[in-house]
Amino acid sequence: MHPPIVHRLTLEHPQGRSELRIGDGALAALEELVPWVAGRMLFVLSTPRLDRLHGGALDPLRAAARQSVELSVEDGEGAKTLAHAGRLWQEMVVAGGKRDSRLVTFGGGTVSDLGGFVAGCFLRGISYAQVPTTLLAQVDAAIGGKTGIDLVAGKNTVGLFHHPDWVISDTRLLATLPLAERRSGLVEVVKMAVSLDLDLLLEVEAGLDRLLAAILAPVVAGAAAAKCAVVTADPSEGDHRRVLNFGHTLGHALEAALGFRHLRHGEAVAYGLLFALRLSRRCGLPATVAVRVRDLLRRLDLPPLPALDIGELLRLLQRDKKATEAGLVWVLLGDLGRPEFVALDLGQVTQELERFLADPFVDV
Amino acid sequence: MHPPIVHRLTLEHPQGRSELRIGDGALAALEELVPWVAGRMLFVLSTPRLDRLHGGALDPLRAAARQSVELSVEDGEGAKTLAHAGRLWQEMVVAGGKRDSRLVTFGGGTVSDLGGFVAGCFLRGISYAQVPTTLLAQVDAAIGGKTGIDLVAGKNTVGLFHHPDWVISDTRLLATLPLAERRSGLVEVVKMAVSLDLDLLLEVEAGLDRLLAAILAPVVAGAAAAKCAVVTADPSEGDHRRVLNFGHTLGHALEAALGFRHLRHGEAVAYGLLFALRLSRRCGLPATVAVRVRDLLRRLDLPPLPALDIGELLRLLQRDKKATEAGLVWVLLGDLGRPEFVALDLGQVTQELERFLADPFVDV
Repeated sequence: MHPPIVHRLTLEHPQGRSELRIGDGALAALEELVPWVAGRMLFVLSTPRLDRLHGGALDPLRAAARQSVELSVEDGEGAKTLAHAGRLWQEMVVAGGKRDSRLVTFGGGTVSDLGGFVAGCFLRGISYAQVPTTLLAQVDAAIGGKTGIDLVAGKNTVGLFHHPDWVISDTRLLATLPLAERRSGLVEVVKMAVSLDLDLLLEVEAGLDRLLAAILAPVVAGAAAAKCAVVTADPSEGDHRRVLNFGHTLGHALEAALGFRHLRHGEAVAYGLLFALRLSRRCGLPATVAVRVRDLLRRLDLPPLPALDIGELLRLLQRDKKATEAGLVWVLLGDLGRPEFVALDLGQVTQELERFLADPFVDV
Repeated sequence: MHPPIVHRLTLEHPQGRSELRIGDGALAALEELVPWVAGRMLFVLSTPRLDRLHGGALDPLRAAARQSVELSVEDGEGAKTLAHAGRLWQEMVVAGGKRDSRLVTFGGGTVSDLGGFVAGCFLRGISYAQVPTTLLAQVDAAIGGKTGIDLVAGKNTVGLFHHPDWVISDTRLLATLPLAERRSGLVEVVKMAVSLDLDLLLEVEAGLDRLLAAILAPVVAGAAAAKCAVVTADPSEGDHRRVLNFGHTLGHALEAALGFRHLRHGEAVAYGLLFALRLSRRCGLPATVAVRVRDLLRRLDLPPLPALDIGELLRLLQRDKKATEAGLVWVLLGDLGRPEFVALDLGQVTQELERFLADPFVDV
């Protein structure tokens, strides 16, 4: 194993600052968190699977705390419910958690989202750290303070902005990820590269095969930095931060229409990006750019898009939680590195959606 | 009915500012909220009882909104559960609520606390207004952004800081309150007067009989202003804001030990104040001050303190959510207008608590 190469980033936000440590061997930076947990009760939220795979990774923190208490949820989006949050809060009260207790999440996007929400509402908010273990969580979910759970009526419909004090992303943990998980996470990297960071795009294009094989440290740090820049500019998703929603408008609708089965989040977002490219083309995006991004996405070898009901998709699009009373605004691409907000009428979208469902990769 | 006398206060806080309108006829100020709801979906959270008593009070807002949706919970602390919050969120998603939708609470402390929490976590936070209808909510619960619900394991253990854009406190609504409710609310006024505002104390001492008979406008505005000053100085209850916890340390434990029956919140806080006076005396509070405050509390003609198990009370005190890992810190009184934070060891507290339970009004 080569020696740790750890990138350090600081994200300033209205609640203070988050310190990020990213790279192969970043877990060594847990040492920096010792004063943060010393003398306090520490809650560790993880899953049985991660506990088996990397259970000892957080031992230095447990040893530094006055007392540590394990909290556990099963893997998968099914854990992001109010019932699980309620159970965890109950366990934390009974264990004697106080306002100056700490919580650390150790898991993927589900654990990040749920754990951030649980920390944000426990006794009106306790400090927490994210130790994300999936590519998706390392480049996206664990950064930026968005937390949430799902209702039957919609994903991430309940939550709050609650920034972690620390984000420790050790890219060595990604070695145990299945290929499909890495691919899903890379879609978010592509999203940020295309809309925000052309150097990152070149890096992804040049190294995709290597990246799929898990040598991920450089692009994780690059994507995290791109996300930090956006979050700093707009911490509570007033406006600008919605550029991160590039590909997610249709992506979320696809996931919901499929009952959150068949496609992973990143895979759905990849199709969402393809659809956004198509809409962007109609609004003037040069064909060369659209084709370039499409070809990159094609190299990810996505699972095929299952059959979908267009009426259901349109209904779900209109329920998008980022919709305002004024209607649905899309994040499109004016050019590489130049995302734009465009309001489109339902007629245009319907027409393009029909063609897209017939073949997502043509007409881009 | 005399013409409206409406006090205007502005509370600056890290999330922005809350505008307060307080007094006889303050509902007229709802007119100022018209631009705030215009063109948007409006959720109104209230109770069937309030709907019968004052159902039309918010009609000007409903008329100004693009669409209004009624949300309802039963009266009483039983409504402050995760299950109710979950049901309300579900109703809001299904109704088509968006991030720029608005919520207005219309009710007592329970509705304020629950409604603020529901607004704070819906789609990661929507703007809301409080229209409190009880004295307790007008002087305390609706001001300062503290929101929360109860778990089986503890009251207000889940929540967040989410400030309302508006607080509209019409003291005419208090005319329909039972005497016991007015008395309970007046305890919070006494708490703030004694620890923060001597003019307010003189006003309460001189006018207590009138206040119990419901002429409440002047002290509501005074108490609200005192609370605003504290919240401005310490919006997220880091330290100074805990002066508002004066009387609440034992008060909360009494409520919990009694299963939230037998004593209203304010009544429990009144006993908590008596106990805090007793501890303050041991730390040097002049007897004249302690006796003066005790005599004022005695005039409220509190229901007697039920029999209580001292071991249970001590256990509950140690679980106080404002306890830190370092132990329990009490808000005591050094003198009128001079609250102090004092850490006391459990032995001292136990001894005083035994005497207090025997007769809460002696030895102060």
